[in-house]
Order: sequence, then structure tokens, then C-alpha cells
Amino acid sequence: MKNITIISAFIIAISFGQAFGQMVPEPRATEVWGKEPVKVTPGENGSPPSDAIILDHSAWESIDGGENKWDNQDGVMTIKPGSKDIRTKKSFGDVQLHVEWRIPELGPEFKDQDRGNSGVYLQQFYEVQVLDSYTNKTYNNGQAGSLYKQYIPLVNATKPAMEWQTYDIIYTAPHFGKNGTVISPARMTVLHNGVLIQNNVSLLGPTVYIGAPAYEPHGNLPIYLQDHNHKVSYRNIWVREL
Amino acid sequence: MKNITIISAFIIAISFGQAFGQMVPEPRATEVWGKEPVKVTPGENGSPPSDAIILDHSAWESIDGGENKWDNQDGVMTIKPGSKDIRTKKSFGDVQLHVEWRIPELGPEFKDQDRGNSGVYLQQFYEVQVLDSYTNKTYNNGQAGSLYKQYIPLVNATKPAMEWQTYDIIYTAPHFGKNGTVISPARMTVLHNGVLIQNNVSLLGPTVYIGAPAYEPHGNLPIYLQDHNHKVSYRNIWVREL
Amino acid sequence: MKNITIISAFIIAISFGQAFGQMVPEPRATEVWGKEPVKVTPGENGSPPSDAIILDHSAWESIDGGENKWDNQDGVMTIKPGSKDIRTKKSFGDVQLHVEWRIPELGPEFKDQDRGNSGVYLQQFYEVQVLDSYTNKTYNNGQAGSLYKQYIPLVNATKPAMEWQTYDIIYTAPHFGKNGTVISPARMTVLHNGVLIQNNVSLLGPTVYIGAPAYEPHGNLPIYLQDHNHKVSYRNIWVREL
Amino acid sequence: MKNITIISAFIIAISFGQAFGQMVPEPRATEVWGKEPVKVTPGENGSPPSDAIILDHSAWESIDGGENKWDNQDGVMTIKPGSKDIRTKKSFGDVQLHVEWRIPELGPEFKDQDRGNSGVYLQQFYEVQVLDSYTNKTYNNGQAGSLYKQYIPLVNATKPAMEWQTYDIIYTAPHFGKNGTVISPARMTVLHNGVLIQNNVSLLGPTVYIGAPAYEPHGNLPIYLQDHNHKVSYRNIWVREL
Repeated sequence: MKNITIISAFIIAISFGQAFGQMVPEPRATEVWGKEPVKVTPGENGSPPSDAIILDHSAWESIDGGENKWDNQDGVMTIKPGSKDIRTKKSFGDVQLHVEWRIPELGPEFKDQDRGNSGVYLQQFYEVQVLDSYTNKTYNNGQAGSLYKQYIPLVNATKPAMEWQTYDIIYTAPHFGKNGTVISPARMTVLHNGVLIQNNVSLLGPTVYIGAPAYEPHGNLPIYLQDHNHKVSYRNIWVREL
Repeated sequence: MKNITIISAFIIAISFGQAFGQMVPEPRATEVWGKEPVKVTPGENGSPPSDAIILDHSAWESIDGGENKWDNQDGVMTIKPGSKDIRTKKSFGDVQLHVEWRIPELGPEFKDQDRGNSGVYLQQFYEVQVLDSYTNKTYNNGQAGSLYKQYIPLVNATKPAMEWQTYDIIYTAPHFGKNGTVISPARMTVLHNGVLIQNNVSLLGPTVYIGAPAYEPHGNLPIYLQDHNHKVSYRNIWVREL
Repeated sequence: MKNITIISAFIIAISFGQAFGQMVPEPRATEVWGKEPVKVTPGENGSPPSDAIILDHSAWESIDGGENKWDNQDGVMTIKPGSKDIRTKKSFGDVQLHVEWRIPELGPEFKDQDRGNSGVYLQQFYEVQVLDSYTNKTYNNGQAGSLYKQYIPLVNATKPAMEWQTYDIIYTAPHFGKNGTVISPARMTVLHNGVLIQNNVSLLGPTVYIGAPAYEPHGNLPIYLQDHNHKVSYRNIWVREL
Repeated sequence: MKNITIISAFIIAISFGQAFGQMVPEPRATEVWGKEPVKVTPGENGSPPSDAIILDHSAWESIDGGENKWDNQDGVMTIKPGSKDIRTKKSFGDVQLHVEWRIPELGPEFKDQDRGNSGVYLQQFYEVQVLDSYTNKTYNNGQAGSLYKQYIPLVNATKPAMEWQTYDIIYTAPHFGKNGTVISPARMTVLHNGVLIQNNVSLLGPTVYIGAPAYEPHGNLPIYLQDHNHKVSYRNIWVREL
């Protein structure tokens, strides 16, 4: 008798299932199977994961098109003042970028924007400022970790000159529509020495020195490092294409 | 024999179900039942829906704290030059705002920012520019539909002076964190005469006349309408709290 | 004497200007001039603006590749049950889409998802549900204005059957990265009869009937209208490419 | 003569400046001075920055309200199976959270979700999955680094069992509006062992085991760690309020 009830219940369930889909245990219904995420072997303490592109001295060229004229010693690139900005030979879109940088020793006569000034430009136009902001005063939207003249860092996580510092940058490239309108802006998240200083902020356009920013449409572009005439050093730069 | 198989299958299914949740038809598993969305009776052609707060002449006060000194005739408010900005008596956060505005007839001597200038400020600080931008030239980030000096409209959907125009604005208030940092910025989507001109853009801070914008933390605040000494008219203003 | 002071001041200012940029009146410094936004003539009350593509009967084809078999009378397309879904001949990315739809008169025996069911699919996969949700109960994430099984509408702004209703949809297409990962999801803002019901929400993937959504990378794709065997009507459909 | 010209030019400039604001060097016009970002001393290699709250054994309580019953040795907390989930005594909103976790040694008989299962819940409801996903197969939206049943990680950056792994999580709390509607969803960015696996994704609601997610409004809430009957260990957990 019980069997018949069970069988009936089962037949009802089956019919129900035929009309509205298969019967499944509830939790199974929301599992996603299929192509698995690609495996990546992580690095240790900021060292490159297995899918990173290493941006050592040879990955860069001068913005005049010639060779990278920055100093290169033991994996450390140091700006030779006047040697001009450098850019990656390869162009990029959306990336995770790791950069380590160091401000040189400087006398107290170097102040404001004239103290350890350089910059990391995503897609050529969008700068994360590099500066000695340990005790050095400057305008807030121009200190280390600012997205130059657009976003002041949430906190000042700067270390003193002569110590290595890190930027971990998550960059989403802008998309452009008909007539060059902006569909989605460039966005950045930045950790400075492991501390969140920019949280998915939307850029208004290139990080310009003069005037209000306004976008010009573009596709993939190189990463730039700025020669601002100060002997700032860089090492262990790597980038993951997202 | 078949029955036994079915019963066995069923028992397995039941056991499986007990371990991992009830058996359900797959589509049922992703339905959400519960508290239903509130019912709203929509208006016709921009007229207020049933849950809107009507912002007629009596809903506003002068920014000097006194009465709204703007002209009020047949449901149309018109700026009396010099009567000062007005603001809603009530403060708001996230809203959908509908505004109709009309540029007065003006001679060709009125130009640039001096032609039908007014503005709709969400939470006091974030302006959608009102201006005659039908053929009148001005800076792009100051034309009608710009988020003043931050976002140029995607297209220019302006009608001629003397015609009623609409703004449908979706406004998300900014949120602030520890020490006044910005957790999420003010965002706006704007339809101008039914045409999308701002698509969920993130404001850098107040829409200032001078300098780079920077946020100061705030809570709910009134909506403002600007007296810029031009006889711009407004009607059928309503707001829905989100 | 005074002249000399002025001249000195001026020379200092000029020198300062030469070092740090031109002298400008502060407000001028943040104006953006340049290529002006394209002019668009707006429509009235939902009628198409000048830059819209009209999606009348001839703009659609059957999903079997043949002609659009839906009924076509006086600019109104009505589903012939069994005539299959239709899709635009043209493919789209980011768009503003205006759709007007009407539920037919139906007896009380039509209930739940079986009452005026159809749907507007952006890029084939992302559905804004069409249903009679005036008094008809169904699961919240399947009622009119839901992004099917993902986003419940903020409010229920439905009109009764036999009345024309509008959807104004702002759609941002998803972008995909290396290995098909999602860089930015599909996003939608929807006004239903002028009332905000979806505010820039991020889709998890296609709006599937069964299971958890998961993206598959794609480029531009047609808009679809669903034949769910109910005589739902459509008119005045237009789209603007963003 | 030249002087007169200069003076005239200067007077014109001054007049211009009086009408339109002060004269400034262009770059100065877009500097933001004022309250400086708070100084934070960063840690090294994931160690806590100076403004972090340390979440050691004493910062947690059992979800039954009593003491944290997890094992505590040399700064390492290890789940005692059956000792129940733990939650922070303090409630949180927007945070940066650092967590280190380790999967115990396990025989091959432990598989799928039954292999090193635990979880980090932001605001009680939003889980970043902890699991041995080194070679262990499970559903993609349930593997380590998934936002459980909503977001599959961009890549699989898992290390083998017995090795310490890190999550660096940037969490933005949801905001709710009138009638409990969602104004802005919970958002997460996650780095797994330094590799970006979640990029500012928007959660649909709590990360539920069964069914489709749907939000219930809430304010600040504790962080939870899950006891899923596996001896997963945690150490060096710290959180920064944003």
C-alpha cells in the first residue's frame, strides 16, 4: 500500500518534472559546471604569477622610438634624468599591474612636486603618481598614489625614501561608442604597499596637468613610466592581461 | 519488476535529496517568492506616478531661508532675476527626478553662458546644467545637460527656446567612509527630452565653477534650482525617493 | 611708482606663468572646448529621436532565418502563437531601446507565467520580462520588468491589460577578456511607463530559465522578441546606438 | 611705449580676471589643497598596516553567542569540526580584509565540496569560498575564490594543501532604499595569493546554497568564518574600515 503511494508520488513528480524541467536536488540546480578557470601558479610576496608578462629593461623602449636609455643594474631600472619617458613595446588593455619603486635620497631643498617625481601611466594617458609623499607636502591630488589631479588617495600609505614601495593596480580600459562617446570610463583600483588607496574609481579622461580632462577614443596602448628628471628606481614590474 | 526499479530509483533520489536538499523541478529552484515589489500607478507622458512627491511652488523655499520668491502662474514657476536660488524644503538622497524647463525668448546679444542659464542641483552640490544650447556655443562641459564641468552630454538633444524640455534624472547619492573618504561617488543617468545624455556617470565631487572638484561628506540634502538672472521657467517637477 | 609696482607684479606673474603654464582666469581653466556633441532632434512622448533606428515589422526576421511571421497592422506587431521568436536583422552592442507593448484581453484562467508572457532580449541573451503583472501573481523575479530570474523590479509599475505600456532601456554590453573571462558585465537601467524599475544593475550572465547564469563571450548580437504563445502586441520600437 | 602696452594688457587681464575669477597659472587651477589623507604605516608582506584591526582568536565569538571554540595555537586558529561558525564581535561595513588560510593534509577520499571546505563571509551573508581547489574538481561557482554560486574566479590561483594562502578582499557594503529596495549592491574585489580573481563584481544577494539570491536590507554586520567540519586553519587576519 505504501509502495503504491510512493509510486504515485513518484509518477506525479515525474510528470511535473516533464512539464517544468527535470527533478533535481535543490542545491544542484544552481551549480555551474563547464569550462574551468585557467590554472595560475601564484608568486610569493609580489613575485610574478605564472601567467604574468615580465616588464624588465628589455620590455621597454624610449618614447622617441629608440632603446630604453634608463639605467639597468641587477634587475633595477633607474631613471637617468633627461633620458625621456619609456613605454612598453607591447600594448595593453585591461590588466593587473605590479610595480615596485624607490625614491632616491634627496636633500631638503627638493620639495613639493620636485621630490622623487615619476609616474606609472596605464594605457599612456592615465597616471598613478609616483612621488616622495612621506613627509613632503604637495597638493592632495598630486601626491603619491593619486590618479593625477583626479583622485586623491584614500590614505597616505607612503614609505620613506630609499625603501622599496609597491603598487598593485587593477585597471579596466575605457570603452568608446558612436562618435567617440564614452560607454564606460577607465577604472582603477590601487593598493599601495598592500593598503587600498583607490577603490574602483572612474576616470574623467586622461590625467592632465592643465585643464579639465576629456577622453579621446583609443584602443590598446603601452604602459608608460615617466622621466621627470628625478632618479627614481623601478624593479619587479609585471603585468597580467585580464 | 519495473516497479521495483522505479521504487529503487525513487529511493535513491530521495536519499540524494535528503543529503543535498529537496527534489524540485529545475526551473522552480531559481524562482524568488516573497515580499512583492510595491505597486505604483504610472503617470502619462511625464506626469507624476502615484508614489511621487510633487515639487510645486510651495515645496520650495529661498536659499536665504524665506519664501520662494520665484513667479508662480498656472503651475509654471519662472525665475525673477535676483530672487535667488530656491531649494526644496525637504531633503533627499537617492531619487528619480523629473523636471520640465523652458528657455525664454532672447535676443542674439545673449550668448554663451549668458543665454537661458539656470541649473538643477541634486543634493545641493551636483548640477545638471540648464542653458539654451540649441545653437548657442559655449564650452562643451557647460552646455545644457552637462554635469557642470565634469561630464559633457553624449549628444545635444536640446530643443529651441520657448519650447518645454524635460530632464529625467536618476540620481544615486554618494556614500562616505572613515575620515570622510568616498566609498561610492554620486552617480547620475540623465535623459534629455527622452534621449540618453548621461549614462550612470560617477561625479568627482561638487560641480564647481572654479578648480578641481573634491567631496565633502554629507547626508540627505535639498534639491536646488539656480537663479542665474535669466527668466527660465519650470513646471511639472516631481521626485520619487528610491 | 605704482606703475612700477604693477609692472613688477606683472613680470613676476609672467615668469610664474612661464614656469608653470599660462595665466588664465580660474574658471576658464576648467572649460573643455573642442569637438561638440552631435545634435539630435528629440521626439515627443516616446516617438523616435532623429538618430534612432526604427524597428518596425520589416526590421525583424524569424529566428528560423525566414521572414518575420508576426502579425503587422497599422504599425502594431502582434504575436501569432507558434510563429516563433523574432530578432532584428541588424546586430547591436550598447543601446538605448524604446519598446511599447500591450497585453491582450485574457480570461481569469490565464495565470502566473501563462498570462501575457513575452520578452525583450537585449543581445539575444538578456531578457526584460513582458507579462501581465497588473494583479497576476507569479514569482517576483519573473514578473513584468524583471531581468528574468536575476533582478526583481524596484516597484511594480504595470498597467492593466489592453493598455499600451513602455520600456525605456539603457543597455551596456558585456566585455570579455582573455580566456573568455568577464571584464565588465552586461548592465541595464529600465524605466517602465516612465518609472525607474532597474537601476544600472549588473547581470550575472544570460537570463536563464534553468540553473545559475554564466557568461559565454560574444560580440554584437540582435535584439529578440519572444513568442511565448500569447498574443502580446508591440509598436513604436526604436533603438539608438550609443 | 612697450610699458604702456604691457600695462594695458595687464589691466585688461585684471579686468577679465575680476569678471571671471582670479588669474592663475593654468596648472595651479586644478590642484586640490586642504585636509590631507590620513597617514598609514603599511605592513610588510601582508602584515597589518597601522590602521588595521587585528582579528586574532579573541576578536571572534561562536555563532551560538559563546566563546570562540576554535583551536588557537601560535597565532593560528584551526577549526575543530563541530565547534560551529565564528563571527567577529565587532560589526563592519565597507572594509579591506586580509585573510590567510591553509587546507589540512587530506586523503584522496575527500573530494568535491568535502575537501577543505570553509568560507569567509563578509557581513554574514556574502561568502568567499575556501576549499582545496588545487586539483580537486567541483562546480566552478563553488571552487576556492568563488563568491559562492554567483561568481566563478577569473583564474584558479590555488596553492596545494598544507601551504598558506591569502585572500585580500575589498568589500563595499550594499545600500538599501525605500521599502528595502537595493540602491547599490554588495561589491567585491578579491586577490588570491596576489592574483586578481574577482574584479569589483556586484552580488545579487546573499550567497545561498539553495535557490536564487535575494537581498534583505541590513546595516553593519560581523564577518563570519565557516566551520564546515574540516580542519582548515586561519592566521594573520586583519581588517581596515574604509
